[in-house]
Amino acid sequence: MARWEPGTPERLQKAALELFAAQGFEQTTTLEIAQSVGVTERTFFRHFSDKREVLFHGQQSFEQAFVDGVEAAPPDAPAMDAVARSLRSAASFFPEERRPYSRIRQSVIDANPALQERELHKLSRLAVTVAAALRARGVDDLAATVAAQTGASLFGVAFSRWIKEDERRTLADIADDVLRELTVLTRQADPEAGARTHPRP
Amino acid sequence: MARWEPGTPERLQKAALELFAAQGFEQTTTLEIAQSVGVTERTFFRHFSDKREVLFHGQQSFEQAFVDGVEAAPPDAPAMDAVARSLRSAASFFPEERRPYSRIRQSVIDANPALQERELHKLSRLAVTVAAALRARGVDDLAATVAAQTGASLFGVAFSRWIKEDERRTLADIADDVLRELTVLTRQADPEAGARTHPRP
Repeated sequence: MARWEPGTPERLQKAALELFAAQGFEQTTTLEIAQSVGVTERTFFRHFSDKREVLFHGQQSFEQAFVDGVEAAPPDAPAMDAVARSLRSAASFFPEERRPYSRIRQSVIDANPALQERELHKLSRLAVTVAAALRARGVDDLAATVAAQTGASLFGVAFSRWIKEDERRTLADIADDVLRELTVLTRQADPEAGARTHPRP
Repeated sequence: MARWEPGTPERLQKAALELFAAQGFEQTTTLEIAQSVGVTERTFFRHFSDKREVLFHGQQSFEQAFVDGVEAAPPDAPAMDAVARSLRSAASFFPEERRPYSRIRQSVIDANPALQERELHKLSRLAVTVAAALRARGVDDLAATVAAQTGASLFGVAFSRWIKEDERRTLADIADDVLRELTVLTRQADPEAGARTHPRP
């Protein structure tokens, strides 16, 4: 019964998500998750440090998808173009067949403030990783930080739309729309507008 | 001894921060905080629901400073100009004399992952509030969300710089620089750059 077989982490994730959605995150035990796929609790802990980690497994591959996008940009590409590529690269991490899973996962997270905070932490770590990838291309520190933080925020906006119930566009298409919106917004704005009414001494 | 006097919450905050910084957040009890300013633990709980809230007290006024900035923008101002004003308005919430307090607070938060997640949650709530203020001005939903999320991220970038040890610029000046950086970055970028190499079907 405790024999390892390929796909055990994926089966545990799927089972955990179904249990979390059906009876609540707090009410579900690691033993229940393990038993529902016919393994011991010890096997569960071989793959995940706790039940929360079941929802956040794969952070490294997730971040790597963004870094791959940054690194695939031509060496002379502007920083925001590299960020745009990182969002499209990450979008390929979320193909259509993953959308129902992502929706259930989000409903579990939405019901639990501690999980929401962990999810925000994920996007925050992502911004730090992308900023480092940009600095490695020679982008200066402020530009790298601003571009990466903005990119992580926009990915969050795009992802929230992608998992809406009636949304059918791909995540890559939504990410493109969100990036275009930022371009329109910053082009409309006058960076000195507010400053003029608050003159510096 | 338990007599209420003006300034008790502020005195509790200051004492709590000193205790957290000196002996660690986890190691500090609400009783110690209360006793260090000569009030009962019951008085402490009249002002704060728990010791974590001491660090996050004032969220409403913090958010309101952003909303005030958005509302002070001329009705026809572009969304990002309203966001720029919200950042400058919030900057006035952090005058020079608050910088040492903000630095100590940050060192306490940096030492505790749960507090970091709570801090991220604060910026996330802020983005939701600013987006609502923009929608109330007639900004459409996507533009309001993108502008507000970007604004909250940039405030985070500016604030992190403001509390660096050798930083002397005001938060308003740093926020202006960060906003200008975003404008430069988006103007350099070609929104279709990556899309061209990933043609849509």
